[in-house]
Amino acid sequence: MDDDLIARLRTGLPPEALLTDPQVTASYASDMADFCPAGAPAVVVLPRTVEQVRHVMRTATALRVPVVPQGARTGLSGAANASDGCIVLSLVKMDRILEVSAVDRIAVVEPGVVNAVLSRAVAEQGLYYPPDPSSWEQCTIGGNIGTASGGLCCVKYGVTAEYVLGLDVVLADGRLLRTGRRTAKGVAGYDLTRLFVGSEGTLGVVVGAVLALRPAPPRQLALAAEFPSVAAACEAVCAVMEAGLAPSLLELMDGTTVRAVNALGKMGLPESTQALLLAAFDTPDAPAALAAVGELCTAAGASAVVPAEDEAESELLLRARRMSLTALDALRPATMIDDVCVPRSRLAEMLDGTAAIARTYGLLIGVCAHAGDGNTHPVVCFDPADEDEARRARESFDQIMALGLALGGTITGEHGVGVLKKEWLARELGPVGLEMQRAVKQAFDPLGLLNPGKLF
Amino acid sequence: MDDDLIARLRTGLPPEALLTDPQVTASYASDMADFCPAGAPAVVVLPRTVEQVRHVMRTATALRVPVVPQGARTGLSGAANASDGCIVLSLVKMDRILEVSAVDRIAVVEPGVVNAVLSRAVAEQGLYYPPDPSSWEQCTIGGNIGTASGGLCCVKYGVTAEYVLGLDVVLADGRLLRTGRRTAKGVAGYDLTRLFVGSEGTLGVVVGAVLALRPAPPRQLALAAEFPSVAAACEAVCAVMEAGLAPSLLELMDGTTVRAVNALGKMGLPESTQALLLAAFDTPDAPAALAAVGELCTAAGASAVVPAEDEAESELLLRARRMSLTALDALRPATMIDDVCVPRSRLAEMLDGTAAIARTYGLLIGVCAHAGDGNTHPVVCFDPADEDEARRARESFDQIMALGLALGGTITGEHGVGVLKKEWLARELGPVGLEMQRAVKQAFDPLGLLNPGKLF
Repeated sequence: MDDDLIARLRTGLPPEALLTDPQVTASYASDMADFCPAGAPAVVVLPRTVEQVRHVMRTATALRVPVVPQGARTGLSGAANASDGCIVLSLVKMDRILEVSAVDRIAVVEPGVVNAVLSRAVAEQGLYYPPDPSSWEQCTIGGNIGTASGGLCCVKYGVTAEYVLGLDVVLADGRLLRTGRRTAKGVAGYDLTRLFVGSEGTLGVVVGAVLALRPAPPRQLALAAEFPSVAAACEAVCAVMEAGLAPSLLELMDGTTVRAVNALGKMGLPESTQALLLAAFDTPDAPAALAAVGELCTAAGASAVVPAEDEAESELLLRARRMSLTALDALRPATMIDDVCVPRSRLAEMLDGTAAIARTYGLLIGVCAHAGDGNTHPVVCFDPADEDEARRARESFDQIMALGLALGGTITGEHGVGVLKKEWLARELGPVGLEMQRAVKQAFDPLGLLNPGKLF
Repeated sequence: MDDDLIARLRTGLPPEALLTDPQVTASYASDMADFCPAGAPAVVVLPRTVEQVRHVMRTATALRVPVVPQGARTGLSGAANASDGCIVLSLVKMDRILEVSAVDRIAVVEPGVVNAVLSRAVAEQGLYYPPDPSSWEQCTIGGNIGTASGGLCCVKYGVTAEYVLGLDVVLADGRLLRTGRRTAKGVAGYDLTRLFVGSEGTLGVVVGAVLALRPAPPRQLALAAEFPSVAAACEAVCAVMEAGLAPSLLELMDGTTVRAVNALGKMGLPESTQALLLAAFDTPDAPAALAAVGELCTAAGASAVVPAEDEAESELLLRARRMSLTALDALRPATMIDDVCVPRSRLAEMLDGTAAIARTYGLLIGVCAHAGDGNTHPVVCFDPADEDEARRARESFDQIMALGLALGGTITGEHGVGVLKKEWLARELGPVGLEMQRAVKQAFDPLGLLNPGKLF
């Protein structure tokens, strides 16, 4: 079977595009999510052209072999994990930036372009591609599209979905579908573009994208505020948003996270704080806006408000925030990273509730949050070798999602469902929601070959 | 048949929610698009609750009767036109604003809320709902969602789709589907919310929406620039966007439109101009930004640049622009309004080409455009009683769409497909695109009862 598959794949692919050594293919088995099952791929394919991708999909359909599309495998939900006997279809070699237009404010790219490479390329033309997931130096645009990635910029600039204007997609049977547009607006037919964004490779293989760009804003200026409680910091977040301010970043780190970052990076953050709030603005009136935020923080009970002296100091603060997950990961042998997003008016309840869950289960749970979005990342730190602790970790992880749903939130703000949260997707969507999701899957992939076992 | 239908409908609807008098029901037959076929409804239903809508859809499915959802019928593509024997399902009585939150920056509304009513209600809380189609004093949010409406704000704020976070939808068989979220971010499953936006009532009936709001910006300040040619005005548009400026409005009126507006509204616009460009900014640095635009206009060949003295004068300029379609409509017995959107780098070619088409066909075609978006509204003015002129009008209308597609554009930037452009949708999407659109329709409405004959 595998021999036939590989022989057929060879007919439309150069030798270097096919990896079959089991030791090599095993290294493509999973993304960065721990504790998600992953199978052994039959083969890894690294195409360089759309035609090669079509050949792979035609072959997969002919032989009924599942296909798992992959980018840089920096995902956090197991959405890119291989299934046994599958073709891993890695798009990382399709990494050309085909066009950047300052007049049309678009970029046309292949899926394997690394996020940071694109960001730098457009910056050279005075342009800005906002989505900035924390893995931006590694992750690809195709992966960002597959998972609908977010980042620190979202409170002002929104998520990846808002920057995808059109797509070229190879369907399960090898047909090439072009969706969307190159224009600023367009309403010709159903919005299939958005359907693919966040679909985790289950509806088709993205082989090209037209992305929207913005003019580059001024570099941002930041401020840090220390709070005696997480709830007070959340109150400040609500006050900032209610006041109509438009920060380019509004991030929260709890005391556990602050101390973890200090331990890892010697950042010199205030050790005794219960919550550190970082706000930034990228507008000409940033100093005034930061002053307004400072006043709102003080009114909410901040014990200290420290504006960065300049852009370099601002960048240092953001580096501390970007280091949070790595720092929490270093505290204990393993972590599970949650991604619950609630209406920001419920943020304090979410975080207080998370702290209560940590106490109930006797676990260390550090939280960093895209607070302006209500998007929290509780990081459950534990030792998987300790069976009881591992069970408590899993239960607390689930309790956090249950709390998020009870507060009118979602189980995933930006990391996606993958295999990690598929049971929870059904809970969030309810029976009718799930039926219609499955109906869409059926319409695009009737044989169920694309990334099976993910989402549902 | 009709008797059975009406008897069944009565079992779940109050008497005043059912209109059966043929003279009355006939008045619900069509939207504002001319020259689109419309049938005679069997009945018009005006529900006030979700449960009533579900009853209507269950009845329609049981009896296999088509249903045409309607808002205020201000659409311009015949998407809300009745088909013979259908149930017209008018959502205008479901017009409650259920919630407005400044902290969460959302509004929760029923579909029949009028756009301007919502805009004013949220403005009272210092909030802003950007989408502003020119019919905003009449059109409903449900209609805006169905057609994915645009407006003057789009160059900075985008279209309706970007403000719809979640939906309650009654499916063809009466099931209630909840999509999306109340949160700022969320990636749980396929984005069905966006699939419904712009689907013209062919996939389900929107009965509730969670809308994103923004903080209210300062009132905008505008500038008018006169150009000796449309091409020069388009050059200025490209220069403004290439310079990284972010106008809240960037509109173009050709000479024909300017003179039509003067004739209708005694606006005192410059009669001899070939193109009038209006730019506005709603930021604290608006005067400086307008000065920069003025310089770019002059460099592109503007013969005069006139900044508005204040907000009131700015509002007057915008009123002239908003009057354009009505003014062009008054020139001749009838009009056909096109809605082609091209990459803005191709705008000059689009408008010069449109002028050439007008000359070739010996027709009066006035153009106003959301120039910053590359979205043009060529208005073909003609006398339908003159058979030859009517034929030329239809042909020129089609030639304009063909030109838009040849320039990498779309046949519709914001007005939708309806019945007016359904042949052209197939051309724009191509065979695979159309197949997948139909597959989606099949997944949601297997019996084909929802707004049949629209889109495809």
